[in-house]
Amino acid sequence: MPAPILTLTTDFGLSDHYVGAMKGVILGICPRAQIVDISHQVTPYAIGEGAFLIAQAYGAFPRGTVHVVVVDPGVGSDRRPILMEAAGQYFVAPDNGVLAMIFAREKHKVRVISNARYFRHPVSQTFHGRDIFAPVAAHVAAGVAASRMGKIVAGYVRPPFEKPRQTGPRTWAGEILHVDRFGNIVTNFHADDFPAFEELAIGRAKARRLVSSYAEAKAGELVAIVGSSGYLEVSVKQGSAAEKIGCRTGNACQIRV
Amino acid sequence: MPAPILTLTTDFGLSDHYVGAMKGVILGICPRAQIVDISHQVTPYAIGEGAFLIAQAYGAFPRGTVHVVVVDPGVGSDRRPILMEAAGQYFVAPDNGVLAMIFAREKHKVRVISNARYFRHPVSQTFHGRDIFAPVAAHVAAGVAASRMGKIVAGYVRPPFEKPRQTGPRTWAGEILHVDRFGNIVTNFHADDFPAFEELAIGRAKARRLVSSYAEAKAGELVAIVGSSGYLEVSVKQGSAAEKIGCRTGNACQIRV
Amino acid sequence: MPAPILTLTTDFGLSDHYVGAMKGVILGICPRAQIVDISHQVTPYAIGEGAFLIAQAYGAFPRGTVHVVVVDPGVGSDRRPILMEAAGQYFVAPDNGVLAMIFAREKHKVRVISNARYFRHPVSQTFHGRDIFAPVAAHVAAGVAASRMGKIVAGYVRPPFEKPRQTGPRTWAGEILHVDRFGNIVTNFHADDFPAFEELAIGRAKARRLVSSYAEAKAGELVAIVGSSGYLEVSVKQGSAAEKIGCRTGNACQIRV
Repeated sequence: MPAPILTLTTDFGLSDHYVGAMKGVILGICPRAQIVDISHQVTPYAIGEGAFLIAQAYGAFPRGTVHVVVVDPGVGSDRRPILMEAAGQYFVAPDNGVLAMIFAREKHKVRVISNARYFRHPVSQTFHGRDIFAPVAAHVAAGVAASRMGKIVAGYVRPPFEKPRQTGPRTWAGEILHVDRFGNIVTNFHADDFPAFEELAIGRAKARRLVSSYAEAKAGELVAIVGSSGYLEVSVKQGSAAEKIGCRTGNACQIRV
Repeated sequence: MPAPILTLTTDFGLSDHYVGAMKGVILGICPRAQIVDISHQVTPYAIGEGAFLIAQAYGAFPRGTVHVVVVDPGVGSDRRPILMEAAGQYFVAPDNGVLAMIFAREKHKVRVISNARYFRHPVSQTFHGRDIFAPVAAHVAAGVAASRMGKIVAGYVRPPFEKPRQTGPRTWAGEILHVDRFGNIVTNFHADDFPAFEELAIGRAKARRLVSSYAEAKAGELVAIVGSSGYLEVSVKQGSAAEKIGCRTGNACQIRV
Repeated sequence: MPAPILTLTTDFGLSDHYVGAMKGVILGICPRAQIVDISHQVTPYAIGEGAFLIAQAYGAFPRGTVHVVVVDPGVGSDRRPILMEAAGQYFVAPDNGVLAMIFAREKHKVRVISNARYFRHPVSQTFHGRDIFAPVAAHVAAGVAASRMGKIVAGYVRPPFEKPRQTGPRTWAGEILHVDRFGNIVTNFHADDFPAFEELAIGRAKARRLVSSYAEAKAGELVAIVGSSGYLEVSVKQGSAAEKIGCRTGNACQIRV
């Protein structure tokens, strides 16, 4: 039997011991696990960015993979931990919308995780990544049935970034989901909803053209392009759009069609 | 038999090939190893920070885990490599105090590593991580008895950060062990020794209150809190204390009780 | 049979989902793979730096290891993917010179990868790391014969950084291959070709002495030293030469003998 695969997506960074501790817990429960880091550099508390990254990554993994996503500003509050089954894979996360882009795309089943038998005890107030999400995911990877973790629920949190907010007859307000290593800015305006536009603004900077490849852009011109995610991205040919504009993940953006 | 687990904690960073080379050596000796990174972002040469991170992490790992800790300003000098057994786990490190916080907490046995048969040859002057620490740890993980590595010793280096230095009837000088991703400042003042204080100063910045949760702090107020490690941490509610103060790992701090 | 080892060296960074997606593809094909990161912090598009890092790392890995190196400014153009066998190991990379330092040192055999049967379909225009390099490497690691991937070729790209360019009777122009975590600057002047020099200049900063250990340098003095790679490195004792000079990977340098 092939080794179970677990992935981790968090805003814990790589300087602290947090990610290592989660892996220790996972391997204590599921010693054969293949653990893969998606990213630990999610902007702190940026649920939209976590949602974007896991939605971009899961398609590359085989059926049965268990994904742990911990971007969790509500840790210690009463937000619920959930376990989702979708696309033949499992997703363990707080119920705060961080799985929203997978909900939107795949048939899914969501359970509230309530069976404390699969937690690490004592459960700390501040580190559910180690004490709830990692051990539950490891038990699922090791073969415990999802149904053991808790009951199926119908309602779960839909986050604000899921849908831009209409602010006028032809204008919508959105947000920056992610800035990639090359400075391309991923917005939450989906090309399905905004196949064309007059202006896409981030602060005072404006993109006025939707191009289909960088080759069409002039040097230094701010353009929009449909990213592999389906979202509109703002880019500069041979440069960092985010640096040029001076913006970052979570900042607001506007579109006028 | 489950795969042996090895962890790595270093100040090598992630841009260079150093960590990859250590893993190559480990897998050449112990092909089934599960290798886990604790952190490679330890501030260069900051022994106290390495000591803090491994002490925070090891409790999450199962018995038999082998931890490699390489923060080693003395590489190339005559500082000794050591192998410690504690809490049913193994720790391989230079004898410079980087294991001090585990010594202080667990029953332990320390050996000086002297059996060059388990080294990678030729041993370079500058990269004992690859040539001594990684191969010794991999052999232990692969089942070689710890006793083969060298003799038990009684004395080993106790580092300055282990105990704050008393500077007056009610004042002590300490140091910053670690700044976490959220800007919280971990000092080496342990709550067992300093259950209360009048003032905790870092440069000109002063914390005057010990709170038990961030909720008690006013916005922008510098407060101290007992971290999960037991050390006093200086924090700002909804902000980065380290940025506010302008300090970093290794800087001095003072306490007055 | 020991688990196959695959290493990854890219300029994808650790903030995005790219590296995670490559690992998902690899594990889908070769579930037992031990995957090791060499570095994902190669300066974007810096072929010389990728070449340097993999050349420094491969010697630590056992025979049979498969190395994937993706620094690929030409993705989407007609540059060819290649598979090299050298030193009993495999290297999968674009044919842009990123394997040049291993060509220069080891007996080798190079194939152009042409058998699309081992690709991930559909092959995207922009992410050959996931769709070509990762799956081909995973199939080789899983036991598919290298000969199945494509035909042996004699010619392949020799990059400009391989040989400094002579600019005068006693002067050569080179480039900075890498800046390590400690700020040491690795040039492409090899000690075999430049065993002595009068001046090694980076911008206005000049090193005039070749020392054999840092101990010989004065505090603050810019010196050159032969690195473990054989290349001349510019360093400052107890400091960061790159910060002092204000230079980075890819910048020009000059030597006068």
